[in-house]
Amino acid sequence: MATWIWYPGDFEVWLGNRFNNRRTERGAMFPPFWKQDSHWVTVEFSKAFTLEEAEDIAIGCEGRYNLMLDGKLQFLAGRNTFTIPAGEHKLNLKVWNQTSPPALFIDGKTVKTDSTWLATYEDKIWIDENGVAHGSGIYVPAASWNFDKMETPPSNYQLERKVQRPVGCDEIATNGTEGVTGCDKFATNGSAREARSTVATNGTGRLYDFGKETFGYLRVKGLKGRIRIYYGESREEALDKEHCETLDVMAGCDKVATNGTKRNGTVREAPNGTAGEVTNDDGQLGSKAFRYVYIETEEGSRYDEVYMEYEYAPFDVDKSGSFCCSDGLLNQIWEVGAYTMDLTTREFFMDGIKRDRWTWSGDAIQSYLMNYYLRFDTECVKRTIRQLRGKDPVTAHVNTIMDYTFYWFKSVLDYYLYTGDIDFVREIYPKMQTLMDYVLGRTNDDGMAEGQADDWIFVDWVDFPMHKRGVLCFEQILFCKALETMQRCAEELRSHPLEQAPQGSITDEAYAADAERYRELAEQLWIKVKNLFWDKEKKTFMHAVEDGKMNEQVTKFPNMFAMIYGFASEEEQRQIMERVMLNPQVDAITTPYMRFYELEALCRMGRQQEVLKEIRDYWGGMLAEGATTFWEKYNPGEKGTEHLAMYGRPYGKSLCHAWGASPVYLLGRYYLGVSPLAPGYAEYEVRPVLGDLQWMEGAVPTPFGLIHVKMTTDTITVEADGGKGILIAPDGQRIDIQGKTTYHY
Amino acid sequence: MATWIWYPGDFEVWLGNRFNNRRTERGAMFPPFWKQDSHWVTVEFSKAFTLEEAEDIAIGCEGRYNLMLDGKLQFLAGRNTFTIPAGEHKLNLKVWNQTSPPALFIDGKTVKTDSTWLATYEDKIWIDENGVAHGSGIYVPAASWNFDKMETPPSNYQLERKVQRPVGCDEIATNGTEGVTGCDKFATNGSAREARSTVATNGTGRLYDFGKETFGYLRVKGLKGRIRIYYGESREEALDKEHCETLDVMAGCDKVATNGTKRNGTVREAPNGTAGEVTNDDGQLGSKAFRYVYIETEEGSRYDEVYMEYEYAPFDVDKSGSFCCSDGLLNQIWEVGAYTMDLTTREFFMDGIKRDRWTWSGDAIQSYLMNYYLRFDTECVKRTIRQLRGKDPVTAHVNTIMDYTFYWFKSVLDYYLYTGDIDFVREIYPKMQTLMDYVLGRTNDDGMAEGQADDWIFVDWVDFPMHKRGVLCFEQILFCKALETMQRCAEELRSHPLEQAPQGSITDEAYAADAERYRELAEQLWIKVKNLFWDKEKKTFMHAVEDGKMNEQVTKFPNMFAMIYGFASEEEQRQIMERVMLNPQVDAITTPYMRFYELEALCRMGRQQEVLKEIRDYWGGMLAEGATTFWEKYNPGEKGTEHLAMYGRPYGKSLCHAWGASPVYLLGRYYLGVSPLAPGYAEYEVRPVLGDLQWMEGAVPTPFGLIHVKMTTDTITVEADGGKGILIAPDGQRIDIQGKTTYHY
Repeated sequence: MATWIWYPGDFEVWLGNRFNNRRTERGAMFPPFWKQDSHWVTVEFSKAFTLEEAEDIAIGCEGRYNLMLDGKLQFLAGRNTFTIPAGEHKLNLKVWNQTSPPALFIDGKTVKTDSTWLATYEDKIWIDENGVAHGSGIYVPAASWNFDKMETPPSNYQLERKVQRPVGCDEIATNGTEGVTGCDKFATNGSAREARSTVATNGTGRLYDFGKETFGYLRVKGLKGRIRIYYGESREEALDKEHCETLDVMAGCDKVATNGTKRNGTVREAPNGTAGEVTNDDGQLGSKAFRYVYIETEEGSRYDEVYMEYEYAPFDVDKSGSFCCSDGLLNQIWEVGAYTMDLTTREFFMDGIKRDRWTWSGDAIQSYLMNYYLRFDTECVKRTIRQLRGKDPVTAHVNTIMDYTFYWFKSVLDYYLYTGDIDFVREIYPKMQTLMDYVLGRTNDDGMAEGQADDWIFVDWVDFPMHKRGVLCFEQILFCKALETMQRCAEELRSHPLEQAPQGSITDEAYAADAERYRELAEQLWIKVKNLFWDKEKKTFMHAVEDGKMNEQVTKFPNMFAMIYGFASEEEQRQIMERVMLNPQVDAITTPYMRFYELEALCRMGRQQEVLKEIRDYWGGMLAEGATTFWEKYNPGEKGTEHLAMYGRPYGKSLCHAWGASPVYLLGRYYLGVSPLAPGYAEYEVRPVLGDLQWMEGAVPTPFGLIHVKMTTDTITVEADGGKGILIAPDGQRIDIQGKTTYHY
Repeated sequence: MATWIWYPGDFEVWLGNRFNNRRTERGAMFPPFWKQDSHWVTVEFSKAFTLEEAEDIAIGCEGRYNLMLDGKLQFLAGRNTFTIPAGEHKLNLKVWNQTSPPALFIDGKTVKTDSTWLATYEDKIWIDENGVAHGSGIYVPAASWNFDKMETPPSNYQLERKVQRPVGCDEIATNGTEGVTGCDKFATNGSAREARSTVATNGTGRLYDFGKETFGYLRVKGLKGRIRIYYGESREEALDKEHCETLDVMAGCDKVATNGTKRNGTVREAPNGTAGEVTNDDGQLGSKAFRYVYIETEEGSRYDEVYMEYEYAPFDVDKSGSFCCSDGLLNQIWEVGAYTMDLTTREFFMDGIKRDRWTWSGDAIQSYLMNYYLRFDTECVKRTIRQLRGKDPVTAHVNTIMDYTFYWFKSVLDYYLYTGDIDFVREIYPKMQTLMDYVLGRTNDDGMAEGQADDWIFVDWVDFPMHKRGVLCFEQILFCKALETMQRCAEELRSHPLEQAPQGSITDEAYAADAERYRELAEQLWIKVKNLFWDKEKKTFMHAVEDGKMNEQVTKFPNMFAMIYGFASEEEQRQIMERVMLNPQVDAITTPYMRFYELEALCRMGRQQEVLKEIRDYWGGMLAEGATTFWEKYNPGEKGTEHLAMYGRPYGKSLCHAWGASPVYLLGRYYLGVSPLAPGYAEYEVRPVLGDLQWMEGAVPTPFGLIHVKMTTDTITVEADGGKGILIAPDGQRIDIQGKTTYHY
């Protein structure tokens, strides 16, 4: 089947720029802090083949192009078809497109664009002393996805939409009632000077409630005149015109300035190129996250109806993970977690859907893991990994954060383990090399990753004082894992050679040399880290060395990652559990972000029962507060609107944040107990743990389909369509899984 | 004055893609062999200032943008104005533009965009353990040129145009007459299959003669139906429908397909995105180089008039170089050389205007030098240097050619010497560093630049066998000069510190360390090169070492560059002249490209009289053949249409090629004898040499205006408005130049 092809990574870089630039802060666009890359503007696609008979091909192209048959340029003069004579041939097409990735679609009887075509951004022709032309470019398999029709090129890509209508509407007077200030800080039609003064209004408006957190495009039918729109994840936010995080102004056609874009009878106020103008690609209001929308109508203006177009990444529920158990609260937590994941699974995995709206590597690696237990949307994982990495040269850590660089490496290994997709590892490996070169080029004299002046050392948002400068044990553990990941990927690529490696491919010898080099680096680093940070008296990893002096602080971070990443021996893990993880003297973790790893560490030590209690308290607590999706942060000690505030802003907290959904991962991974042992679930284990439940039942998606697990207090049933599975029962028995397998314990 | 600003180099990268992709080969577009880069798609512009009173600013922007005043994002909602209150402030605007370089224009009473604004593509914000945000981006002064009105943004840039009409028109029957074959190889409306078969036609048409070589856009008024257009630099080429290098098909509106672009009543056949479609930016026929145009009209078609829009880079003749002497032929050679330069001086310096149409570093460095003696278009020099270098990472030599990388470095030093523009050196220096890193990362075990499998070693087009693999002495001499250039630029930047260096600037210490490092590298390399290649018996630099063995070949290339680049002592220069340059046993140079350096070497040895003879023979020979511009190659032994052929194609030779114009440089540099001794002509010498002339008179442009020189057989008069000049008379006298200075010798 013919499909649109392009240079690997280009689609993600281009789409990522649109995605990340849709973030707004009170009507102003808000691009990322790091460099935004661009696709290769000129790409050559080629394919060699033999035809038994002449063949007509239809050519679709995003960009201007030329076509070379057997090294000879053809004059096509306005036609999008070409006839290839019978025989042995090579087609080369060079495509130039400044605006969106050069992409090609060729459809003939046998000649069709797909991933067997090669791509290069530089054919590097040169002519030797005998006048012979050489091409020494580096070629890679062309990228493709599901753009299988000529009329659906990659640049037209968008998520699915469906109409949602509000479930309620209140008439509101904003003059000091409802906790709303009687003024706004931006003028709608005044001079620039007025825009910054405080104008008193006596607005009245309507507050629409869409019933639960949602994401998409607000639509206003029959608008005459002008309205102001204030979005809220909470009722309070929508009504707080001064502090709500997102807002819009919309005018009906009769008031439109000549430079505005007319579409569907309404337009955004701002023409292209204007600050504050962050419209959707079709010129309408940009997408927003909200449950509530408060609309004020200017005097003399009116509209007929308000609804929204919900925007979502489609998935197949029959191929998705599931979880159901004897505890209704847990079931509800799983459902809300799944909805939180669905809202944040978009063109890329997004952290929070209201304010943040960028891709973040540390957040994304958790989304990937949850996704492997929910929708198994591997394309979104690949897109996000590619987008986060961007293009060379590397000028900063991923998202400028050192830990996020290390998570990025780990996410490739996770992806390979869950999917077995060695082709993606091969594609991304050169980008792993150059990112690791960047890391290795910035180590200190001891070979450790010490933050330089322009590195963000994140670790976690903590409320207690925590040193982030100097050499952090936490960062070294992640660094070690990144080096191990390089080694492992090089080994896997060495043992999966291509039958026909394209010109310029990395050789098997180079992979072998890399594997050895990274193995040595990882080993040497770990010896140093262990010697430096492992306190033999305290039986804990210490937090940091600053200016050559060991800091006395003990935190959970390095200790739990030493457990999860497999650096701590069983004995050390037990010591860490006792001395750190279960030690009330050690500062508590307060973000769902790091609770993900904390609860994972507890589960790995068999403490599923305690973890269930934590889940009921923490995530159940959010539900009790009325959450319809899980939050960026939750402190059970806070009350009322305190839950909405963060970053010093009254509605700064994201009420739909991917990292809030970790029960989706924990329940699949450590209760249903399903995990791959060999890449792509070629081998896997099911190690179910009930905790305090009476029964549970669920499914985990894999490349070959679902693995169903059902467990009661005395029986386990597992059913799967592929892979070599082993069931590890609570009594320690190991049972081979074959078809539907039942075990009574 | 307010002016449009952008990130340095972005305009050139973007414009370069348009420029280089305009090349066509018989109707098919022909992009370069090397990677085409892209502008930074998101750029932040900033400026700190203090206002005595509030000020309104108007904002123009290419791209979507936001505006931050004192760190706070503003909601502008469709306005392109903003009021800044009195006081101390900082403005930051972030602009996103995928399609053309993000560019900004701000115009207020005192706040205006110009080169005092800073730009970055990555503000690299990060948040420390105390929650404090840090920006650790690298900032540079924003780039600007002459886009001084809001309504003329950089993306609208185009050269000037004026109408030219043909001076003659012949009715031609193409059925075997006029040496034209009676067929063409491309169908105009047939199926793809027909397109490749040979279709016999009995066309008749009209041949238009524009009187001399020209460049621009053919225009056809009142076209009904369809015509086929064949361009020729010669009459023969235009009439040879099968082999002419460029051609077009044009249809009047009444026959236009729905996907064609309608403009001015005519359209190119090919819609956007179609092979063979290389229209101009306004959708009309793309620009072409030609003197003759042959037009065949389809049956039932007709048109009213043919003319062309000549396209050119404007210049001020009163500020240009000039040359006039007692020899009318030389004067004509100078004029035709100047016209050749004017035709190839465009958005960038182009090599040849018909076929080549890319920027080439080795060609460009000669254009720059000619330009310093003709129009002194320093902006075009800077644009071409930036465009050739492109963006990081460096993945190939400049134009894939090792020698062209080295010329690129040298061209920066030349530019600095002629202009004194240290700001440009500062801007480009980081790109020099990374390119030199690439070179140093590919040297062999002896530290020499040896061609790797994907390096093009060009040197020159030669008709004799010449080894290009192994270690070439020629390449090492260029490499040495590149290292010296790095040293010199680092020293100059060290001694020209900025008063207020933007955040992330290279420190004085780093410049000093660089200077020392490159000095050492250059010195060490030269010692090795001298030991290896200088044959103490033969008194010549040998050509190459291959597989550890000295090749016995002697060529002029390394020897003349050792002279010109100052590596050979005076004694060695005399030896080289005798043993190599004037030795008939050594293979002759046959391209104007290397004759540039050969004649320069002869002039430097005081052989102006012989060189005049060469100029009269060689360039005069082309004029005698009817040249209206100078050619890519000229062999006086060839006859008739042999002069038109090259690269195995009957019209492959460019009849308007920049490197053909070298008399413009030689006459200014070695006869008028004007050259800078200190950067920007702060100090300069005038060392006039008459050769066999009775008198000569001319002017050389400098940053402070023209230096006029007039010389007869007994008197020299020099007049200049600036700089510290010294006149060196034929009798060896050195006279300080002050105002109008006359010396009788």
